Amino acid sequence: MEAGKCVAKWDVFEVSVQGRTEGNPFTDHAVRGVFTGDNETVQTDGFYDGGGVYKVRFMPSYEGTYHYEINGDALPDGESVSGGFEVLPAAEGSHGPVRTAQTYHFSYADGNPYYSVGTTCYAWELQDDERIRQTLDSLAESGFNKIRFCVFPKHYDYNLGEPRSYPYEGTPMDPSVITEDNFWQFTEHPEERNSWDFTRFEPAYFRHIESCIRELARRGIQADLILFHPYDRWGFSKMAPEEDDLYIRYVAARFSAFHNVWWSLANEYDLLEKSDDDWERFASILCEKDPYGHLRSIHNCFAFYDHSRPWVTHCSLQRQDIYKTAEFTNEWRGKYKKPVVIDEMAYEGDIPHFWGNITAEEMVRRFWECAMRGGYPGHGETYEKGDGVLWWSHGGRLRGESWKRVRFLYEIMAQTPGHGLTSDASQDYLGVTAVPEDEKERAKKAYFIYYYSFMQPCRKVFHIDDETDYHVEVIDTWNMTIEEAGVFRGKFTVTLPGRPYMAVRLIGMKSEY
Amino acid sequence: MEAGKCVAKWDVFEVSVQGRTEGNPFTDHAVRGVFTGDNETVQTDGFYDGGGVYKVRFMPSYEGTYHYEINGDALPDGESVSGGFEVLPAAEGSHGPVRTAQTYHFSYADGNPYYSVGTTCYAWELQDDERIRQTLDSLAESGFNKIRFCVFPKHYDYNLGEPRSYPYEGTPMDPSVITEDNFWQFTEHPEERNSWDFTRFEPAYFRHIESCIRELARRGIQADLILFHPYDRWGFSKMAPEEDDLYIRYVAARFSAFHNVWWSLANEYDLLEKSDDDWERFASILCEKDPYGHLRSIHNCFAFYDHSRPWVTHCSLQRQDIYKTAEFTNEWRGKYKKPVVIDEMAYEGDIPHFWGNITAEEMVRRFWECAMRGGYPGHGETYEKGDGVLWWSHGGRLRGESWKRVRFLYEIMAQTPGHGLTSDASQDYLGVTAVPEDEKERAKKAYFIYYYSFMQPCRKVFHIDDETDYHVEVIDTWNMTIEEAGVFRGKFTVTLPGRPYMAVRLIGMKSEY
Repeated sequence: MEAGKCVAKWDVFEVSVQGRTEGNPFTDHAVRGVFTGDNETVQTDGFYDGGGVYKVRFMPSYEGTYHYEINGDALPDGESVSGGFEVLPAAEGSHGPVRTAQTYHFSYADGNPYYSVGTTCYAWELQDDERIRQTLDSLAESGFNKIRFCVFPKHYDYNLGEPRSYPYEGTPMDPSVITEDNFWQFTEHPEERNSWDFTRFEPAYFRHIESCIRELARRGIQADLILFHPYDRWGFSKMAPEEDDLYIRYVAARFSAFHNVWWSLANEYDLLEKSDDDWERFASILCEKDPYGHLRSIHNCFAFYDHSRPWVTHCSLQRQDIYKTAEFTNEWRGKYKKPVVIDEMAYEGDIPHFWGNITAEEMVRRFWECAMRGGYPGHGETYEKGDGVLWWSHGGRLRGESWKRVRFLYEIMAQTPGHGLTSDASQDYLGVTAVPEDEKERAKKAYFIYYYSFMQPCRKVFHIDDETDYHVEVIDTWNMTIEEAGVFRGKFTVTLPGRPYMAVRLIGMKSEY
Repeated sequence: MEAGKCVAKWDVFEVSVQGRTEGNPFTDHAVRGVFTGDNETVQTDGFYDGGGVYKVRFMPSYEGTYHYEINGDALPDGESVSGGFEVLPAAEGSHGPVRTAQTYHFSYADGNPYYSVGTTCYAWELQDDERIRQTLDSLAESGFNKIRFCVFPKHYDYNLGEPRSYPYEGTPMDPSVITEDNFWQFTEHPEERNSWDFTRFEPAYFRHIESCIRELARRGIQADLILFHPYDRWGFSKMAPEEDDLYIRYVAARFSAFHNVWWSLANEYDLLEKSDDDWERFASILCEKDPYGHLRSIHNCFAFYDHSRPWVTHCSLQRQDIYKTAEFTNEWRGKYKKPVVIDEMAYEGDIPHFWGNITAEEMVRRFWECAMRGGYPGHGETYEKGDGVLWWSHGGRLRGESWKRVRFLYEIMAQTPGHGLTSDASQDYLGVTAVPEDEKERAKKAYFIYYYSFMQPCRKVFHIDDETDYHVEVIDTWNMTIEEAGVFRGKFTVTLPGRPYMAVRLIGMKSEY
């Protein structure tokens, strides 16, 4: 019954067993695995995948020979299944799961820094195959390395279609009665119109999501999975606590072995009818049932959740102010002492919604304001113009202009000496000056990025010290050019073009840069 | 010794007398006047104007026959001077001094609303005649109706020239030693390089400023006079307390009778070496010595002064945050319950200084954000390109683009039903919705301006009520166009061009608009 004799490090090793089918296999029977190599022993729950098949998944973190043993009352007559397999070196470009690093940053398990530049497409994986392929192509072209999306389907403006399938056995409401004008009323009392058995999952639904997670992994993209969200006509946001818990255990068992999974407990937790106790319970289930400790967050609509809770690995934030957004990165870093990921800083677009119509220039500006303060920006796009397919929810094709500037910023982020940027707070009233987070790097006074936002100075005067030769670059963050301005020492003036969105990078020549 | 037999209401009636010259006429002798008409009796100090001449000025607030009596020890042998004069109707376009009105707003003495759209040219009146003429022409073309400027000359970047004359008898430092690089050091210990008698004014200096105040009045422009400021190489910012007090009494006696005078105790009070007690004492002198109660304020660099002090008639503010500025108008109105005038919300320009290089678009946006919340915006311009004459300090020619959009905004402000705008705070998270301040006007639900700032919606949906016909206009605040969109009732959609800086005005047709 072994699934395979070898697997690459950080890939999924899966054991399938035929098991008991009487009663409700999702709730009445269990299967567990223990995976043991020279450097780790991992216990993990399996899950029922339909058709009498139970599966247990494992993500090895080390190379070498492993042994496994599967047991549980789902196996016939108390038997257990065991075997061995080899873990080979990680595939080219595979760096393992992302962890927090240096308080405010992220790195892959192999130690490489991970600089998050994400986007949001809430229901992209529930669209048809053609659109899913488009989305994956768009993602690859754009350079985004994280995408937020919901496990459950979404019901909202521009999002009234049916998902490609359903997560539970049962019957959905008839969607033909829904219009753009009346859709809100269907979020109330969904149990009167839908009929689901919340104790019986549809494995095909989750299998499809897994295929999407794998496609993302293949492209080096983190899958920031949103477990709950409020925009719902089917009742998945209003299940009973024990049904919620069952769901969390199920997705933890199915998805944890995928190295690129992040857990977002909720999109806009504060719009859901759940208590802090509920969220804390969900978090504790995840902490217990995900043996790999994938990143965990919870995203707000208005007020932030208490991101100082120990299980919150990083702040996943929606802006709280229409005008000032990414400029708060320092403040939030200081408050929570965790990585700050501004997953929603409004959307580039043209829709009427107050959060959905900033310009591409403003989006790129927010990306830079966030990144230059050592935060991690998130993109989204909501153009009504076009065919009514909005990236923010459906994925598909990107129509805007900000996404084209993301890879350029990413490359500059990735050039940071040490690991991660921070800002020189002593200069805050002047704007933002990015410096390395690493204290030793910072002490060298050899790396500065001055970002000028919507300001348009025609020149800037610098005077860091009198000893260092600074290699000076003028960066146009919108047009994506880096021009050499020369090498300067002491007090010097750098000429700028007198238009917005410029930056100046100083690289000290005494150092290794 | 009568100066004239008649004067227009709110103009200056001046009595000159020949008086004693022994000792120091500025400190050793005094002259006072009492002006009496049917509706008012005003007592006011006179001042020494040089050449043995003392003057007493009066601004009548009513038409009709007045009597005056001048006395004081400055007059020879204890004599007094008296006489009568007629006050005629106010000149065409003369509305009298500006007062606060309806808590957050201003009106002229004749009851007409005054909607302030100001600018700053710190030392315009100390330039040569040709530049002063240019400035006055520029002001008239622009439509600004207030200008902030300093009584004392200014010493700062781009401002190292000599003023046209000096306010005191004495000898200034040799300016030939000053360069752009060393100028800061001359702000320290000015007494070592300058030699002034701070008890002897140069009347010609003040007479010239008066001529500028008159020129402004002729153009309907308020003269927001800054009494102290920190950018100084002559020592005028570091006089002894009794010298400061003498100066304030002198300018109060000279300038109070000009209807368009506002008192700004300081530009950037927090950079001056004066205590709160000093400022409070200055304010009390002004309250006592200005019989007309001209508007009084005190302007910050960083932290605001306590604008809740009773003598502060309105908040004269410099932005405290690089990114968010005019959007704080509501907050400041709420905190101080006084008119909010954001006299410095950064400068349109291209200079390196962090406060001096926003775009014209951003300046105009800040004007609208402020005005739509019932505040009063202030302009400034600092372009290094050109001939080194920066409007912000010298006046001269306007080089930017924001000033061209000021009159358009002013005209919309002036169309407000009742008196003054406020914003509908219940909608703050959506942006800004301007409504009339006047409760009766607001209750009509007949006047709304929705301003979309940097957002670029392609349409907006409105639903105020089901009874009112709304006349809808689409306003392009940058291109200064107002397009009729039609008349709508109930829930309706207004199409927008999908670019920033747009507004929609709804005017209810059941009302008188």
